[in-house]
Amino acid sequence: MNVELITIGDELLIGQVIDTNSAWMGKALNDLGFEVNRITSVRDTKDAITSSLKEAMDRVDVVLLTGGLGPTNDDITKHTLAEFFNTKLVFNEQIYEDVCGFLKGRVATINELNRMQAYVPESCVPIRNTVGTAPIMWFRIGQKVVVSMPGVPSEMKTTMTSDVLPRLKELFPTGHIIHQTILVHSLGESTLAELIADWEGALPSFISLAYLPSPGLVRLRLTARVAHEAEGRRAIAAAVDGLYPLIGTHIYGQDDQRPEELVALLMKQKQLTLAVAESCTGGLLGHLITSLPGSSSFFKGGVVAYANSVKEDLLGVDAKDLLTYGAVSQQVVEQMAKGVRQRLKCDYAIATSGIAGPDGGTEEKPVGTVWIAICGPNGVLSKRHFFGAIRERNIQRAASTALIELLTLVKSD
Amino acid sequence: MNVELITIGDELLIGQVIDTNSAWMGKALNDLGFEVNRITSVRDTKDAITSSLKEAMDRVDVVLLTGGLGPTNDDITKHTLAEFFNTKLVFNEQIYEDVCGFLKGRVATINELNRMQAYVPESCVPIRNTVGTAPIMWFRIGQKVVVSMPGVPSEMKTTMTSDVLPRLKELFPTGHIIHQTILVHSLGESTLAELIADWEGALPSFISLAYLPSPGLVRLRLTARVAHEAEGRRAIAAAVDGLYPLIGTHIYGQDDQRPEELVALLMKQKQLTLAVAESCTGGLLGHLITSLPGSSSFFKGGVVAYANSVKEDLLGVDAKDLLTYGAVSQQVVEQMAKGVRQRLKCDYAIATSGIAGPDGGTEEKPVGTVWIAICGPNGVLSKRHFFGAIRERNIQRAASTALIELLTLVKSD
Repeated sequence: MNVELITIGDELLIGQVIDTNSAWMGKALNDLGFEVNRITSVRDTKDAITSSLKEAMDRVDVVLLTGGLGPTNDDITKHTLAEFFNTKLVFNEQIYEDVCGFLKGRVATINELNRMQAYVPESCVPIRNTVGTAPIMWFRIGQKVVVSMPGVPSEMKTTMTSDVLPRLKELFPTGHIIHQTILVHSLGESTLAELIADWEGALPSFISLAYLPSPGLVRLRLTARVAHEAEGRRAIAAAVDGLYPLIGTHIYGQDDQRPEELVALLMKQKQLTLAVAESCTGGLLGHLITSLPGSSSFFKGGVVAYANSVKEDLLGVDAKDLLTYGAVSQQVVEQMAKGVRQRLKCDYAIATSGIAGPDGGTEEKPVGTVWIAICGPNGVLSKRHFFGAIRERNIQRAASTALIELLTLVKSD
Repeated sequence: MNVELITIGDELLIGQVIDTNSAWMGKALNDLGFEVNRITSVRDTKDAITSSLKEAMDRVDVVLLTGGLGPTNDDITKHTLAEFFNTKLVFNEQIYEDVCGFLKGRVATINELNRMQAYVPESCVPIRNTVGTAPIMWFRIGQKVVVSMPGVPSEMKTTMTSDVLPRLKELFPTGHIIHQTILVHSLGESTLAELIADWEGALPSFISLAYLPSPGLVRLRLTARVAHEAEGRRAIAAAVDGLYPLIGTHIYGQDDQRPEELVALLMKQKQLTLAVAESCTGGLLGHLITSLPGSSSFFKGGVVAYANSVKEDLLGVDAKDLLTYGAVSQQVVEQMAKGVRQRLKCDYAIATSGIAGPDGGTEEKPVGTVWIAICGPNGVLSKRHFFGAIRERNIQRAASTALIELLTLVKSD
């Protein structure tokens, strides 16, 4: 089943905002067996919206639109769709209640612009927006479906996940698509591809393989398109078994979960507590962990020890060692981990200290040098890494590597 | 002068890669006075490329394509264009020299796939690629221009900057486009629109306005399209002046900069130091600040005080107050800010404590309640906020709001 996406907004065309919605939607649709065969970004004008929608409807049966649904004058998607589908805007009591409920406590008074959000085209099936005030409109035109959603990524994602994807799946049943992700660390994409080239060449034709790299990690995604689910699962399992002799030491998981999610699962399961002492990661480890709901059950907190004085005063790092070995050293990073574990009274602690760049590198410790220490009840594991030249990537690689090293140590303890 | 962009590649449609090229090109073209009025992403198939190109050429005079120019079999843009323009591929000696020059030292031998890169459609003007091996093809079809460029962002950017943009500018002289962004905080999009409705209605017709919301912030973008640059700048300046009496207290900047960038500028300029005590933001404040190169010159670090015991032990928050008022309270957040400022010996400190959700809310303190305190040499500023229901947005709004409150206090001190 083919789908087209239309993203609406001047900001996309003048380059002020990167269209990240389309990639998210493309992946989500693909996972369900739908194929996105065109993405179109157009301006907030009636002509642009109307002509792109007409063209898309001529090509495919499902067209998903995002954007142009805000309360202000520059947002015209709703009016344009009403005109395009020859219908009029009508006031919807339920939407108005939802808008009021959402805005309660957020704004002093519900104004006319907010009230106008409750007008929707008469011929659409409104979908309730639980995380914003923009209307969400599902149109059925003969066999075709057109859905208009907000461009705000969190609103689009909530709507897609809870309503649009399940409705599409029900309306347009697809064959079985089985995905299996293998999580690989500490191997570059091209090295990995070389190591598994023969294995990849021998995959059955109904299994496709995708490499999804992120800093320090590669997710290998196997996708089987089959008539019978059991057959697909067997084939995938056999393929995965074949990977372990080749790259087993680099595989850290088999579900599409981020390292921090795996850490959270393990810590909760084993009823352990965690603290962090962050120098070069500067708070990212804490942020990744606390992004997960319920993280307070195992994560106590930590110290962002950016300045050396903080390493001394809050973590008890020896001033002499800082002077002798430098902040980016095994001695210091181990003391940071031990210090934060002891002071926060946790089972495990992570510490990072490195040179993220672009400045601060030396011949002996170039930009990208990062020391990571994991401290647990049975001792400390510390390792030096050389990442790369780009600050942002170094920070992210340091964080994901640290989380994977924590997983390794906790599992072996 | 209208332009369309076509980005080619299956990876864009299945969501494996986010199309960042289009935003970059849109901005670069816009800065020169060209208007991108449509962006289309299509698969690596002959039909998809041909039909999207034909449609684009029917609408506009300039079409820029990226992608599908690699040496492997899945890249078919070059062959498709040769067929579409009724021409044949011919070997180009200069391109072959460039390919060999580029690959020298990078590969052991130049193989047949590399040699094939030197074949280009006979009717195009080849543009030399100084940073890769993909051919770059400039087609002139009557009054129209079609350019095919590599999808690798660094190759596309180099080509655009050094060749395509200057050639387009010479061929199609344009007027001036002037953008000005106004950064607004703590006003919802619809409240803001209501406050400035009369002002917006009175804008000259050659100035357009866009609202660009992100968690806790709205960027207002004014765009003037004029024949003379000075005239446009004067009109924009007058419009901006008119905003201050209406929403001046909510404006925190006039350049398109993130709050942490403004904080970094101000702290460096005033030679001040900063620390953070993060409960509900869990490390995000530290991460945002340390994402900026050179942040170590003003940022000392902080404490991620997720558990109450950390608030007591590392920040000196009174255990009785934690019990009496709860962790999400003015008393506690102020003690967190004072505590981290004193212990890290900084000029300023930020503290956050809130209920990010989805659990932990009560009637009195619903999910989304966040206390923020800023402590400086002249005292403490603390405020309660009610954000919303979504954990991720609450964390981000708490961080951006805290940074803006820091800016406000430092400027007034």
